[in-house]
Amino acid sequence: MNDLKRIVIALGGNALQGADGPATAERQLVTIKNSAEFLADIIAQGHHVVIAHGNGPQVGRIVLQNEHAADVTPAMPFDVCGAMSQGAIGYQLQQGLSEVMKNHGIRKQAVTIVTQVEVAADDPAFQTPLKPIGPFYGEEEAAGISSIKGYTFREDAGRGFRRVVASPAPVSIIEIQPVKTLFDAGFIVITVGGGGIPVVRDPQGNLRGAAAVIDKDLAAEKLAEDIDADILLILTAVEQVSLDYGKHTQRHLDEITVAQATQYLDEGHFAPGSMAPKIRAAVQFAGSRAGRVAIITSLEKAAVALKGDAGTRITS
Amino acid sequence: MNDLKRIVIALGGNALQGADGPATAERQLVTIKNSAEFLADIIAQGHHVVIAHGNGPQVGRIVLQNEHAADVTPAMPFDVCGAMSQGAIGYQLQQGLSEVMKNHGIRKQAVTIVTQVEVAADDPAFQTPLKPIGPFYGEEEAAGISSIKGYTFREDAGRGFRRVVASPAPVSIIEIQPVKTLFDAGFIVITVGGGGIPVVRDPQGNLRGAAAVIDKDLAAEKLAEDIDADILLILTAVEQVSLDYGKHTQRHLDEITVAQATQYLDEGHFAPGSMAPKIRAAVQFAGSRAGRVAIITSLEKAAVALKGDAGTRITS
Repeated sequence: MNDLKRIVIALGGNALQGADGPATAERQLVTIKNSAEFLADIIAQGHHVVIAHGNGPQVGRIVLQNEHAADVTPAMPFDVCGAMSQGAIGYQLQQGLSEVMKNHGIRKQAVTIVTQVEVAADDPAFQTPLKPIGPFYGEEEAAGISSIKGYTFREDAGRGFRRVVASPAPVSIIEIQPVKTLFDAGFIVITVGGGGIPVVRDPQGNLRGAAAVIDKDLAAEKLAEDIDADILLILTAVEQVSLDYGKHTQRHLDEITVAQATQYLDEGHFAPGSMAPKIRAAVQFAGSRAGRVAIITSLEKAAVALKGDAGTRITS
Repeated sequence: MNDLKRIVIALGGNALQGADGPATAERQLVTIKNSAEFLADIIAQGHHVVIAHGNGPQVGRIVLQNEHAADVTPAMPFDVCGAMSQGAIGYQLQQGLSEVMKNHGIRKQAVTIVTQVEVAADDPAFQTPLKPIGPFYGEEEAAGISSIKGYTFREDAGRGFRRVVASPAPVSIIEIQPVKTLFDAGFIVITVGGGGIPVVRDPQGNLRGAAAVIDKDLAAEKLAEDIDADILLILTAVEQVSLDYGKHTQRHLDEITVAQATQYLDEGHFAPGSMAPKIRAAVQFAGSRAGRVAIITSLEKAAVALKGDAGTRITS
């Protein structure tokens, strides 16, 4: 596969901040520049790239700051916190990518679009919010906040109570036209950060921010279909998808069909909050049109995987 | 002036949040939608518009939240806080404008670009930081922070000590090419929020975030030159520029030349932190090429001012 492709890259959280130490802006920028090196290897091959990314830890800290300072200035709702995270992460990605691309002699520019993603107000996910966000609270404090703000809380792994929000499916990317315009003009567009700022339509058809987390791999999949990408490249902490992950029978997968992947999904091979949504996004993309390929691999192996020599390929 | 123009609109803080009551997201959105009505009147005339905006109160609250929660999660530096404010304000402007334009039957889309603006590392403004940002501190606390972080503090009107940063001149808008691409494609671009995220070039030519506030009217002026605008429309709290403002000799100005405006500036007619930078931006734009016009007026009078029936026009 030596020809040039249209690629949506879905960056995982590990590409945006280091595993250890305090989450300072300086340390995040170091991690982002390191990640940008691997992205530059892909861009240097001549591929035409759009970047989607997660925001879990970042928006979690923004929510924490907002709640912590709520006695001195009003806490912003979750949709606005998501917009703030898009600004901050997008800025650092622009800066990091521009520096690394310059060093690689790549004359391209990265640019961030603040992006809303519509979800259905009647998405069944809203009935069972499961995605934890923000700080931990004691049981009484959680009950107090819940009675004032109507938030749903759940006990989280014995560490206290956390607010949970729904994780509805992406329906449409509101800013897809400007994304396409910049992509077609040769820019490296950074979009649907954190899965996009979740919005629903009110009865008049106007957009309203929603307290929800859209899975960033599913948002990237929607983006990949919308820009008619050839490849959806989902980057995560492992080099390949495995069956029986962590067991002595673990097997790495080089290439699987949509049918096989669906079967493995149904058999419960993939962790619900982790690999399963990536496989689901990959299946959806590879199954959406003949010739479309999803690849799941690590940031470090991404350029090699595009050449067919690493990662797990999901094909129709 | 009935023909269609290329216009940069510089929105003041009053267009983004109400004067009274708590600065909640809901209340900001109400103010933004109200402001969007006046912008829609301009857009409905068929003009081709780019929107620049301030972020003073918003980024002030983000800094406050960051400092207030610094014991639980690292405070982001000022450039990242600026990026966060661009995300949040841009999101609300996108949502507010889209709703209002739909109601006006305008088929246009507003879109925000996360925008860095380069300033010179040797800008003399860095020698005398004067722009206050963030919360007030007691003298001892301020001295303690200063010794750790190297911040400069100043006593602020008897209310305590505040960090001050430089206000250097904008040199170049880093994301000007994507802004132009979207503008030429018919989008209403929201850019240089808060004057832009301030960056300087290091000796290797790479961009580094700077703790600085770029005057948003000067950033809008640079933007207006870069996109070859016909009109720089600076919106503020008053309908017209005045001489002897607040005195019994106060005179409103309908139209002045660059030479007159410069003379009034030199004579000290305009308040340093308020009208003076607007006049300076207007003089710079109107003087940059024959035919270019700057207009200073209120949000409410903006559409009328474009027709020549309100506001103050600064012409070459």
